[in-house]
Amino acid sequence: MTGIIEAIKGRTSANNFDATHQMTHDEIKELVALANETPTSFNMQNFGLIAVVSPQKKAELKAAAFGQPKVGDAAVTFVVVGKMKGNETLPALIKPMLDAGAIDQAAFDGWIAKCNGMYAGKPQAQREEAIRSGGLVAMTLMYAAHAKGLVSGAMIGFMPDAVSKVVGLTDDEFPVMLIAIGRPAAGNWPRKVRRAIDEVVKFA
Amino acid sequence: MTGIIEAIKGRTSANNFDATHQMTHDEIKELVALANETPTSFNMQNFGLIAVVSPQKKAELKAAAFGQPKVGDAAVTFVVVGKMKGNETLPALIKPMLDAGAIDQAAFDGWIAKCNGMYAGKPQAQREEAIRSGGLVAMTLMYAAHAKGLVSGAMIGFMPDAVSKVVGLTDDEFPVMLIAIGRPAAGNWPRKVRRAIDEVVKFA
Repeated sequence: MTGIIEAIKGRTSANNFDATHQMTHDEIKELVALANETPTSFNMQNFGLIAVVSPQKKAELKAAAFGQPKVGDAAVTFVVVGKMKGNETLPALIKPMLDAGAIDQAAFDGWIAKCNGMYAGKPQAQREEAIRSGGLVAMTLMYAAHAKGLVSGAMIGFMPDAVSKVVGLTDDEFPVMLIAIGRPAAGNWPRKVRRAIDEVVKFA
Repeated sequence: MTGIIEAIKGRTSANNFDATHQMTHDEIKELVALANETPTSFNMQNFGLIAVVSPQKKAELKAAAFGQPKVGDAAVTFVVVGKMKGNETLPALIKPMLDAGAIDQAAFDGWIAKCNGMYAGKPQAQREEAIRSGGLVAMTLMYAAHAKGLVSGAMIGFMPDAVSKVVGLTDDEFPVMLIAIGRPAAGNWPRKVRRAIDEVVKFA
């Protein structure tokens, strides 16, 4: 078992991956099941994951990511997808809690009303919330990979429209980040330097 | 030791906190030290953390967060701060790697040039990157809290300008999220329902 603190301190961003390593759909779904536990605003779950594993799609995704080798080499490169209009899909997502009696009708209605108040008709708020959720999900995914003895490399260097086309996103979806996951090859960098704690935190 | 997978599966969003629990600055810095290991684009470290602990500031922050009780009750409520213009502060942050010989001058210059290419003069890209970084940092912070036997509750329901004023943010900073951390009180919800895995992931 890998401890959380060990994972937080031990995780580094990998650039070089073992191109011979492949992962089964079940192995990938284990990572997705963990990422799926990530919290989201109002539990909107306003994200999706595309697991790019086929040589053809990896090549296309790599081209959309300025030729970064890890997109092609890693066993899987996830496209972390942000979803607009999360407020519109919320009712169906939390209906099981109403049906199970975990919440009553008033709580259900209030939950949806508050969510609509924050996001309905507000595309910038929707987009920024999807980026925030994507960041939370991506971080969980990287720790999940670490727990499985794998390494990860997050990428923001890609052409969003090209990535959307490669993986077939809808008009209400956009790529928040790419996360390559697999076994490491030689030559990865050690941990990069960080600020001193007193430069990071202020007390109030 | 708490395992990563246990933390990912076991973490829930707390709403009720033990208002008698206080944390020392050193205890809070242990959480910050872990959050500080979070990866950021180009290692810009384009975030800050304000640890709100004083009764006065908690009351002001609570008012800026629509009166949510957890802001006042939790031992600490962090304001996760996003920083614009991260590209401008990058050179000073990675200079230690140049000085230590971890990278050469060409790598140093190229690193900065690529970062400027993505963010210089692009306020939307800067803002979205700060939200993405804030999401990554917030997730690490929540797992760090779990590792310390504490609970956490993330909030997006607040008035950004009011929060900025309460904690004295600069024009280049904005609040990405609030994270209350402390000991739980009774009445917190169990894990909320999630989508089935096959609704979350697609293979390509």
